[in-house]
Amino acid sequence: MYHNNTICGISTAPGVGGIAVIRVSGAGAIAVVEQLFVPKTAERRLCAQKSHTLRFGHIANGKETVDEVLVSVFRAPHSFTGEETVEIACHGSHYIQQRILQLLLASGARMAEAGEFTRRAFLNGKLDLAQAEAVADLITAKSEAEHKVAMQQLRGGFSEELQQLRDRLLSFASLLELELDFSEEDVEFADRAQFNALLQEMQAVIRRLIRSFSLGNAIKNGVPVAIVGHTNVGKSTLLNALLNEDRALVSDIHGTTRDTIEDCIQLHGVLFRFIDTAGLRHTDETIEQLGIARTYEKLRQATLVLLLLDATRPETFSAIEEIRAQLNDTQQLIVAVNKVDLAACDIHSIPSPIYISAKNRQGMEALVEVLANHVNLSPISADETVVTNLRHYEALQRTQEALVRAAQGFANNTPGDLVAQEVREALHHLGSITGAISTDEILSTIFGKFCIGK
Amino acid sequence: MYHNNTICGISTAPGVGGIAVIRVSGAGAIAVVEQLFVPKTAERRLCAQKSHTLRFGHIANGKETVDEVLVSVFRAPHSFTGEETVEIACHGSHYIQQRILQLLLASGARMAEAGEFTRRAFLNGKLDLAQAEAVADLITAKSEAEHKVAMQQLRGGFSEELQQLRDRLLSFASLLELELDFSEEDVEFADRAQFNALLQEMQAVIRRLIRSFSLGNAIKNGVPVAIVGHTNVGKSTLLNALLNEDRALVSDIHGTTRDTIEDCIQLHGVLFRFIDTAGLRHTDETIEQLGIARTYEKLRQATLVLLLLDATRPETFSAIEEIRAQLNDTQQLIVAVNKVDLAACDIHSIPSPIYISAKNRQGMEALVEVLANHVNLSPISADETVVTNLRHYEALQRTQEALVRAAQGFANNTPGDLVAQEVREALHHLGSITGAISTDEILSTIFGKFCIGK
Repeated sequence: MYHNNTICGISTAPGVGGIAVIRVSGAGAIAVVEQLFVPKTAERRLCAQKSHTLRFGHIANGKETVDEVLVSVFRAPHSFTGEETVEIACHGSHYIQQRILQLLLASGARMAEAGEFTRRAFLNGKLDLAQAEAVADLITAKSEAEHKVAMQQLRGGFSEELQQLRDRLLSFASLLELELDFSEEDVEFADRAQFNALLQEMQAVIRRLIRSFSLGNAIKNGVPVAIVGHTNVGKSTLLNALLNEDRALVSDIHGTTRDTIEDCIQLHGVLFRFIDTAGLRHTDETIEQLGIARTYEKLRQATLVLLLLDATRPETFSAIEEIRAQLNDTQQLIVAVNKVDLAACDIHSIPSPIYISAKNRQGMEALVEVLANHVNLSPISADETVVTNLRHYEALQRTQEALVRAAQGFANNTPGDLVAQEVREALHHLGSITGAISTDEILSTIFGKFCIGK
Repeated sequence: MYHNNTICGISTAPGVGGIAVIRVSGAGAIAVVEQLFVPKTAERRLCAQKSHTLRFGHIANGKETVDEVLVSVFRAPHSFTGEETVEIACHGSHYIQQRILQLLLASGARMAEAGEFTRRAFLNGKLDLAQAEAVADLITAKSEAEHKVAMQQLRGGFSEELQQLRDRLLSFASLLELELDFSEEDVEFADRAQFNALLQEMQAVIRRLIRSFSLGNAIKNGVPVAIVGHTNVGKSTLLNALLNEDRALVSDIHGTTRDTIEDCIQLHGVLFRFIDTAGLRHTDETIEQLGIARTYEKLRQATLVLLLLDATRPETFSAIEEIRAQLNDTQQLIVAVNKVDLAACDIHSIPSPIYISAKNRQGMEALVEVLANHVNLSPISADETVVTNLRHYEALQRTQEALVRAAQGFANNTPGDLVAQEVREALHHLGSITGAISTDEILSTIFGKFCIGK
């Protein structure tokens, strides 16, 4: 019943524009709009209008003319939602948009909830869940890379890859279940060697997908770059220079920065998230100590660590060993020497440091290029699937864990029903990504994040 | 040449939304979009698509898929602009909107200037100038009254009324010009009595239209209400109470307000523009004297004058006579007595004052009702033409002046060529409203105020 309601919502950006589009979807969409729409040429009523055609006329309520509009009709199932849909393109004043919505509500439609149009598209099989989520990502995409990954997901590449794996696992699973039914007869329907090969292959694919998330996350939220170094080496000045604005407080006093300051900027087509941290030094001040503790925490989250030294103070060079000790395998260290306008400097202990003067914005272009070269965006250009969604990432991890347990079960000759249980769990988590498996709760969480009218 | 370019622009509100609409107009619109659009079902190319139909597909640039879109085709002259038009409904991300525009530019379209789509609609005879201006008014309309007046103008009521008058004057004018051609023969083609009757009738109609501008202006910019009274009677407190915010500085010190403060609010469906003025008192302070001079100036511009008295200070009542002496015939005086929470008060010298306590927001509802009752919006509900546009108002005034001079010329037996000159001037100004007479300069001024994409 609930899903058969006719819903309406403004689908264009909020605010005033030349035109706005109001979408009406549901079995009664045409009937609802029919009550308000007066076509310019009276030859044919809206209910007789063909799918994918447009009609000019006006929206009226009795003697009141609300607006001249263009009305598009889409017959089920040939619409975004898969339902009968009418789109009203009206003039984009706040008053007109609100008035037409009011009249639609009075004519029997109800306001669409956030993401409800896309939710219906999913429920009607027009999109799977990963594709539906890609719609939201596509709309909020700010960079080319982000857009490309969302577009790929919307077009179904990701879903198809998962679906194929899942289908193969499913057919093995049903053979396993069959064995359980005939357990007393001790037959083997599923070829153990083939099954094991499939489990290994799946693990390899899913491992790659899980790994792609660090790139996907960087694309969506920016590549995290921690700017670290001793106090007063010019970290905040460098942040300001990179962002091209006065974001962080700058002074000659050691320990000016206590909070970590983060900000994003696109450089060379890559979104970087720069994190300015409190300077490292031995201090008795409690607040500053807390700041330094947080610096080490931020450092652990960063993909790139940009260590800043002060050309005029050789004692700051000791930070190189200090920081190196903190890094893990996947983190990359970039060393820059600041204040080269004030002192000549040559460091032999590290390969190719970058010499800059953050204050004079000298050497910045070279620094940015080094940063960009450390980010590998090649999976995107090679059309490889990149996971950007935390929900997918977590589901993939759970799938992987179940696959590992299933493979171990086989190796250890664990009873078939326990192995079957693990396979079922892998199928479940894999299916939750595309929505082959879904609950109302999952759907509400996903579509609640959408904007109204989409 | 210039007008044959294919232009493109984003027609929906700026910012991110579910969908955005990009409009492409001009003789090459379909050819431009054809280069980028890949229909889902490849059966038919865009150039073969019928008018007023929609097509699903995607926008691609080589291997790059930019977005999945719905494309609408309108064949000339059956479009808003009267030209071949394609509308692309895409996902509303900033990236997608900009990318599709870039690709359209690369495919041979150019960016539309502000108002250029509507300008083309005018140049192609789809709208007259007054209707084109109504499009801009319609989009920015914030109140029901404002919307109604703009809608009426868009639907051509105003234009038709003017056009009929102008046509009748035009036929008389041609007879007058004919007489001038045969001036040596001293013939009279134009019936003087009928002509004079027409001039009188036109003057009456135009007088009504000119008068309607004070209402039209009030609808658009708010009904101006000057709040006046002695110092410290609570004018600024009342302004804050009416606006429901702390707009004006309030203190116990006499003469706190020096500048006039204006702000608009919609009350009972009417947009009011409240003007807080400097308090009236005899003062030697130069700045305050200037403020009081400005108070009198603002008072002259107000439609309603709201005089505030202080119940605790009977000497403030003397302002009644002081202000009355300043009012003209069309201005209405409303008297309110403030601070009734502090003192009982009964005033016999004026009919029905309103008793309030601005500080406690007491009696505000009654005051607002009295204000609203003083505004006559009935011409709008009676579908009478209301002039809201300053350009139209000025053209009507110049028309009227020319008509008066023509009528006087007749009465004084002025030579026919001088009368004909006045009639020509009246025709010119009347024609400039609907654009029967227009220059590139006028058009640029009008359409330059539009938003891009409209």
